[in-house]
Amino acid sequence: MNRLLIKSVELNGSTTDILIEGERIRQIAPNIIDDGAIQIDGRAKAAIPGFINTHTHAAMTLFRGCGDDMPLMRWLEEQIWPREAHLTEEDVYWGAKLACLEMIKSGTTCFIDSYHHQPATARAVEEMGIRGILASACFDNFDDAKAQKVRQSLPKLHNNTLQYSSRITYAIAPHAIYTVSPSTLQWIDAYAKANNLIIHLHLAETEGEVADSLQRFGFTPVRHLHHLGILSPRLLIAHGLYIDDEEIHILADHGVQVAHNPASNMKLASGHAFRFVEMRRAGIPVGIGTDGCSSSNNLDMVEAMKLASLLGKSWRKDPEVFTAAEAFYAATAQGADILHVDAGRIEEGRLADICLIDLNIPAFTPNLNFISNLVYAANGSCVDTLICNGRILMQGRKVAGEDEIMQQATRCAKRLC
Amino acid sequence: MNRLLIKSVELNGSTTDILIEGERIRQIAPNIIDDGAIQIDGRAKAAIPGFINTHTHAAMTLFRGCGDDMPLMRWLEEQIWPREAHLTEEDVYWGAKLACLEMIKSGTTCFIDSYHHQPATARAVEEMGIRGILASACFDNFDDAKAQKVRQSLPKLHNNTLQYSSRITYAIAPHAIYTVSPSTLQWIDAYAKANNLIIHLHLAETEGEVADSLQRFGFTPVRHLHHLGILSPRLLIAHGLYIDDEEIHILADHGVQVAHNPASNMKLASGHAFRFVEMRRAGIPVGIGTDGCSSSNNLDMVEAMKLASLLGKSWRKDPEVFTAAEAFYAATAQGADILHVDAGRIEEGRLADICLIDLNIPAFTPNLNFISNLVYAANGSCVDTLICNGRILMQGRKVAGEDEIMQQATRCAKRLC
Repeated sequence: MNRLLIKSVELNGSTTDILIEGERIRQIAPNIIDDGAIQIDGRAKAAIPGFINTHTHAAMTLFRGCGDDMPLMRWLEEQIWPREAHLTEEDVYWGAKLACLEMIKSGTTCFIDSYHHQPATARAVEEMGIRGILASACFDNFDDAKAQKVRQSLPKLHNNTLQYSSRITYAIAPHAIYTVSPSTLQWIDAYAKANNLIIHLHLAETEGEVADSLQRFGFTPVRHLHHLGILSPRLLIAHGLYIDDEEIHILADHGVQVAHNPASNMKLASGHAFRFVEMRRAGIPVGIGTDGCSSSNNLDMVEAMKLASLLGKSWRKDPEVFTAAEAFYAATAQGADILHVDAGRIEEGRLADICLIDLNIPAFTPNLNFISNLVYAANGSCVDTLICNGRILMQGRKVAGEDEIMQQATRCAKRLC
Repeated sequence: MNRLLIKSVELNGSTTDILIEGERIRQIAPNIIDDGAIQIDGRAKAAIPGFINTHTHAAMTLFRGCGDDMPLMRWLEEQIWPREAHLTEEDVYWGAKLACLEMIKSGTTCFIDSYHHQPATARAVEEMGIRGILASACFDNFDDAKAQKVRQSLPKLHNNTLQYSSRITYAIAPHAIYTVSPSTLQWIDAYAKANNLIIHLHLAETEGEVADSLQRFGFTPVRHLHHLGILSPRLLIAHGLYIDDEEIHILADHGVQVAHNPASNMKLASGHAFRFVEMRRAGIPVGIGTDGCSSSNNLDMVEAMKLASLLGKSWRKDPEVFTAAEAFYAATAQGADILHVDAGRIEEGRLADICLIDLNIPAFTPNLNFISNLVYAANGSCVDTLICNGRILMQGRKVAGEDEIMQQATRCAKRLC
């Protein structure tokens, strides 16, 4: 089995070696000797778990910079949906490869995706070497024929995904309650339950969505899902900005999980009052996401941690909440638990999904408080080396094939935009 | 005279050459031939003006990560002021060098500083090659003996600063209205007027400051200064969060300038409602600052632009305000005007303070909208080359002497923290 030995790296404030065998961390101890392993010099570097991005749309890298500075619905209707109508499998393949490249360069080893042409994303992620929970986006727009198509295509997409390695998992992403009918949501929930799949849904993202939900269904978004009987630990909602106290308890009681996307919420002005403190107190697992590159406009989880913490402090007028340590936990261990991945922590037996952070840069000088420096001072460019599933995907910030990926993605984007 | 020729660089969407002679931009045109000039390959790079940081405390890099997640006054009283009491000239020298290194690495060519041991900062900035408006911090804590000391020391500090090159300018930084007496503020204003100096003052940063000002002086902070007769175009206030409509017009009528510090305001939860739209509409020049590394916790103006824009959109619930273009203008041309520096724009005759941005990275892929990518997708690590005053300070992200600076600053910080 392939073995990597990281020598003399900082881990939780001590210097140690880390031995990786196959896909997993075999041993963490000082002075490990293994001449057969590939040696990695960990000096002046710190090891942290790879980040877990709990909400994005990978191939939307192609639309980076399209339609800035406008509200969510206008942005979707004028900028995004018309362009997405022309997306090909090849576009999504190169867009997803660019997303993987960007994630590798900023320390993300695992993400959940929701997008069209899911097979193209699966192929791209398989090739790039990171871990993806790859949900096919579903819309029926309350149309029976489209709902029928969802029911036919979804098992095929699920089946197609099974051909890939253990790094690639299938999930289902009904877009939102205003684009997917109640009966399709219930059918998806039954399918997900039978096949043990994650359901990933945008929910309670804007005040308009809440007003629309009240008018259309007679309930707020969370209560609508509750009424449909589809709240469960399988459900991961993105955003969850407009949720009242009772709804927080309904979500907690059903084990529902939440992905917080501070950059997207701020840039689209969807809402700033994400109730992290109340959700965590109620026991809801909250991860951090970047959202897609057309709304956020990057996939940098280091930046997302800072934004989550700063936004959390700012709107509550309380600098003591959403600490650096809480942001780091949400972006690593908590994210891994949300996506059912045995990673997010550097421990013997866990999957070897590891970033090595370059400590020899101003952001880590002085390094009196590593987690503070990582969350508040650094950005994704501090990642020197990325290992996923026991394989080195980046070393010295170089990723194999990066120039071709950027060229091909640019070619696809220019045709679409 | 020293000549640099940047070949085939992107500038405002076109490809051109830029010839620098001595301190200034001599010519901007395609296909300039000058065999005697040092040639810089600008392909796959974009030229932008160096950023102008309108509020920081350079040597506070030494306190990076000290006292996160606490409110302003507790942070000052428990973490910062006790440590600052032990600061030596040598500490400030290495802290300021680290700050200059960090600024160079993230594209800043000019900043205004407010700190103790100003001569040490002046020496550091002179050596590092960037431009500094270096204000000595003044406190009298309403004590006559301390006020007397301020009046004695300030002309000496001013005189000492004159020994340096044209890149170094003196300014005065009375800390705040709650630490500097009205009579000292008036004396400073008269001295600044006689010597044509900028006065840089923290103002209206917290609700507590406003309440204290009302109780102590019978006026809100802006009205207190107005009453003292010291509002003028020489005055650059930092923060300005708690300012009502009438005060905005008072500031505008007197030509007062404002530095907005989104990261610091968010992290310390000082306040999120910075009234950029109203201030700009009233004609107040608004620049962007990072604040010091103990509150913000870096000096990255690219990140500061994104935070300013996102925070501006978020609290107003309006995604159309504080656009990427407005953030870029505030961080470059407007900042230069505020600090009276003939830079902030790439134009023939201007000072040659230029960043070359590496376009061959995911943040600029695709590059459909350069300013959007710079503000919303990139971070300071996108800067490949930095030129200040016609001299190359960084190329390929390498800065002369960087390892020693980080080692020495770490040594000083460890003694203090």
